[in-house]
Amino acid sequence: MHIGLIGLGKMGNNMRARLRKGGIEVTGYDPNPAVSDVASLSELAAALPAPRIVWVMVPSGKITSGVITELGTVLSEGDLVIEGGNSRFTDDFKHSAELAEKGINYVDAGVSGGVWGLENGYGLMVGGNATDVERAMPIFDALRPEGPRAEGFVHTGEVGAGHYAKMVHNGIEYALMQAWAEGYELLDTRKDIIKDVTGTFEAWQRGTVVRSWLLELLVKALKEDPEFKEIEGYVEDSGEGRWTVEEALNNAVPVPTISAAIFARFVSRQGDSPSMKAVAALRNQFGGHSVRKAE
Amino acid sequence: MHIGLIGLGKMGNNMRARLRKGGIEVTGYDPNPAVSDVASLSELAAALPAPRIVWVMVPSGKITSGVITELGTVLSEGDLVIEGGNSRFTDDFKHSAELAEKGINYVDAGVSGGVWGLENGYGLMVGGNATDVERAMPIFDALRPEGPRAEGFVHTGEVGAGHYAKMVHNGIEYALMQAWAEGYELLDTRKDIIKDVTGTFEAWQRGTVVRSWLLELLVKALKEDPEFKEIEGYVEDSGEGRWTVEEALNNAVPVPTISAAIFARFVSRQGDSPSMKAVAALRNQFGGHSVRKAE
Amino acid sequence: MHIGLIGLGKMGNNMRARLRKGGIEVTGYDPNPAVSDVASLSELAAALPAPRIVWVMVPSGKITSGVITELGTVLSEGDLVIEGGNSRFTDDFKHSAELAEKGINYVDAGVSGGVWGLENGYGLMVGGNATDVERAMPIFDALRPEGPRAEGFVHTGEVGAGHYAKMVHNGIEYALMQAWAEGYELLDTRKDIIKDVTGTFEAWQRGTVVRSWLLELLVKALKEDPEFKEIEGYVEDSGEGRWTVEEALNNAVPVPTISAAIFARFVSRQGDSPSMKAVAALRNQFGGHSVRKAE
Amino acid sequence: MHIGLIGLGKMGNNMRARLRKGGIEVTGYDPNPAVSDVASLSELAAALPAPRIVWVMVPSGKITSGVITELGTVLSEGDLVIEGGNSRFTDDFKHSAELAEKGINYVDAGVSGGVWGLENGYGLMVGGNATDVERAMPIFDALRPEGPRAEGFVHTGEVGAGHYAKMVHNGIEYALMQAWAEGYELLDTRKDIIKDVTGTFEAWQRGTVVRSWLLELLVKALKEDPEFKEIEGYVEDSGEGRWTVEEALNNAVPVPTISAAIFARFVSRQGDSPSMKAVAALRNQFGGHSVRKAE
Repeated sequence: MHIGLIGLGKMGNNMRARLRKGGIEVTGYDPNPAVSDVASLSELAAALPAPRIVWVMVPSGKITSGVITELGTVLSEGDLVIEGGNSRFTDDFKHSAELAEKGINYVDAGVSGGVWGLENGYGLMVGGNATDVERAMPIFDALRPEGPRAEGFVHTGEVGAGHYAKMVHNGIEYALMQAWAEGYELLDTRKDIIKDVTGTFEAWQRGTVVRSWLLELLVKALKEDPEFKEIEGYVEDSGEGRWTVEEALNNAVPVPTISAAIFARFVSRQGDSPSMKAVAALRNQFGGHSVRKAE
Repeated sequence: MHIGLIGLGKMGNNMRARLRKGGIEVTGYDPNPAVSDVASLSELAAALPAPRIVWVMVPSGKITSGVITELGTVLSEGDLVIEGGNSRFTDDFKHSAELAEKGINYVDAGVSGGVWGLENGYGLMVGGNATDVERAMPIFDALRPEGPRAEGFVHTGEVGAGHYAKMVHNGIEYALMQAWAEGYELLDTRKDIIKDVTGTFEAWQRGTVVRSWLLELLVKALKEDPEFKEIEGYVEDSGEGRWTVEEALNNAVPVPTISAAIFARFVSRQGDSPSMKAVAALRNQFGGHSVRKAE
Repeated sequence: MHIGLIGLGKMGNNMRARLRKGGIEVTGYDPNPAVSDVASLSELAAALPAPRIVWVMVPSGKITSGVITELGTVLSEGDLVIEGGNSRFTDDFKHSAELAEKGINYVDAGVSGGVWGLENGYGLMVGGNATDVERAMPIFDALRPEGPRAEGFVHTGEVGAGHYAKMVHNGIEYALMQAWAEGYELLDTRKDIIKDVTGTFEAWQRGTVVRSWLLELLVKALKEDPEFKEIEGYVEDSGEGRWTVEEALNNAVPVPTISAAIFARFVSRQGDSPSMKAVAALRNQFGGHSVRKAE
Repeated sequence: MHIGLIGLGKMGNNMRARLRKGGIEVTGYDPNPAVSDVASLSELAAALPAPRIVWVMVPSGKITSGVITELGTVLSEGDLVIEGGNSRFTDDFKHSAELAEKGINYVDAGVSGGVWGLENGYGLMVGGNATDVERAMPIFDALRPEGPRAEGFVHTGEVGAGHYAKMVHNGIEYALMQAWAEGYELLDTRKDIIKDVTGTFEAWQRGTVVRSWLLELLVKALKEDPEFKEIEGYVEDSGEGRWTVEEALNNAVPVPTISAAIFARFVSRQGDSPSMKAVAALRNQFGGHSVRKAE
């Protein structure tokens, strides 16, 4: 099988390598000529056997939409686009409809695994019709981790279902990380009791109820930088967490831990908090409690 | 009526003034001779007609406990101690038992109103037996706001019930303040839409569902310092909020807004957050997401 | 001044009454002929002096949009539409643009006060250009509470700003109600300590930091139905709370109490909770903890 | 090595089996004669070689305290007690001091792994002095999972440190479970999109960021009972979660996800929610919103 892969950043580059290792011939395109195999999307289309399969792995939002639109001009009826970026599932409805007008098929794929996917394989959640998904199965099999297919791949529904599942996956991930972080702070704050914070996390890796890959990463990070002296408590968020809460609101699903995880990130990025200024001002008004003067 | 008042700080000093204005004779004691009417607790006891009534208004915890113990040595059977500080209700059980051994009666009083109490009167929640509470009623009537007694005073149960009610009052207060603060940040963040943040709050003071004294204080604070440029978002907490959550845990009562208000204060006081360092470290581990280096 | 008022439900009917009491002539239209003054929107337009002013007070969303579109066909250049329903502020951008194509002016008004507005007046937050707002001022003055205009009315920005402010107002309101509710449960749960729950809330109405109209309503409700024996703990939500959290997400504003208030409502409406089934199942898996069998 | 083990319930019975499999001779005592090896604690003491080692594995709180006190009467100077129940770390200070008066040594052990520990081994967090911990190491090595000792065992500090670590472990566990539960509800609610909820979780077991043992248990539970039709969403809590939040309050550590997890359990056990009755009552008061009548 010979496919195209658009987007050769941190994720795409690793995926090209894993696909090739798995026996899939890949022609990659990226605006950065240093990593690209071809000079343009039309060159990419020309290089592929028809009916073509093209995997899109670029930043979600406008960039993905732009690529989809351009693919509509260089691909042909019967070709298949697999959109594997971190897109919002509602975008898949637009993108698939846009390509369907030209007879181009569409599958959306949620991809988890981060920079470790090259080595470990990627967890895949795929949405689309059965024929399209079946056609792309050799690609999924090359990308997914070794072991039973069902433990690293799922065809979870029609178009959009892959990214919906990935969105929820990331929402859970936000809350899991926050849970670990709260536990870390509880141990770190009582170093008078807990003499070996890193060792405590290390000892949870086998036998305990909480054993998990995020725990292993936490141990790895603590061994590299005990007490996180080199790291500032400043955390970005990339969209899926917010979308998860929005979907929860749309569907009346209570998500107290996922929302708490996102709000904690928001606070982490504030130099000074407008809301806490307001609380300080209120306490000063009714109780004469002193406030800290801003410098 | 002639009573003793121990503790002449921000609250006690104002209360002495309001009691005197209300026709209660007050002999005040404070370790600070500049504000004290007598030189010691034994002098205070000697100055009062028997059976004595003494109001204690000192910082909760060890200081209150010390005063209670010392009062056990200078007061006599049949005297009445009213403990009006911000004590935990469980302390009342100890304090009243300690004094009961000497035949000294005990009432606990939760007092709300802050620095405005001198002018507006104090909201009072009182615990104790009916005889003791009745005996002290002229004091409560002098302290409470004008208007129907039932709208500024309640005998809410046996010893401890006054401080339990005050604890819950303050727990609610924490959450109310946080709610206002979140609303402030939502308006402040969209000053491109809301051209007059202070004016918006000001306009909520009449007719709306949210009209309240805290809103009036927020308007007052914003008029004094629009955008809170002079205030840092650093907020202390004084105990009742934590106790409220602990009681909630003891009684399996969900208190998501009260706990959120307290956690927001905790975060406001952290220079850098250990938990958010951990989240940043985890994201870096699995996704290669860059972290901010601590300086 | 003579204006049109569309929508004569619980809110609109009361507003018509208050406007008339305030000296504004009102022709009302409602699909329900029992309350309507005219038979159709075109009759309404014909009944009003040009340039016309029409206040729209119908359910937000599709119904409001439908009325706006129909008004575009019966009103004329220079007329003014005031949209006073609980619309999302982003809808105002669409509605005002739609009417602007026909030269019809647009003001959005957030209205607070509920069923009490007839008697107490309505808190008003208004968005639009200065000329339009000035033109409608006699209407706002008739609707708003007595007292200084600035304490019950604000012109808070361009079109959309009124509903943005109202959205935040309602978000705060959600959190305030939840705070009171948590406090209620904390008192109610310890009736062994708090012998008079209603009396405790009643006593907070004067002098305390927490005094507010919601507290007064809580006292009123408890006097009508002590312990809420007649009421089920089932709570709807009407949109503004969800929108507030969505805007918070859009602007990276942490809103832990507002979101907690909404999630509590979601849970209150669930017969059985899917998420808690999952937790019960997990505990059973790892700990052999027994689960309750669903019937 | 020959030790005593007190408490042969779900956990203790499995531990006895694993210890024996690991070459440790165990004499077990339980009030239930059907499972007990001896008839009393004094018989147990008599059966063990001096200096004795006794592992206590009974319900935390009064029962553990009672056993500790009784052990003080049947053990001798130089013996070692290992307290492995789910005790609060502050209890260890009392228990160790009580035994120290008789020269009996004390180690506390947090044990994780649930009913799977017999097969997989138990994660162990141990507090005490180095000599005592070293002496008991053959026991820990028999109980802990296979693999490097540091990945299933930690000597985390002085007496109390083992249970402190276990408390935090369980606090994290509460939040992790709640995160999974929220994700489950988000998938389950949109079964129109997600055609295979169980399959989606199953596919996350390899390669993804969220892979973990709790996920594996969730998949196992869903395969046994898809959609959890047999399970009620009613969840107990056993203490450690509450203690974790209390310690967070004591140390000013924000724990929004851990507290949210506990509050969700509290709500799950309420037939009707007093707080939501209050919110319903408030909405009815100001907005005339209808309430559901309790039956």
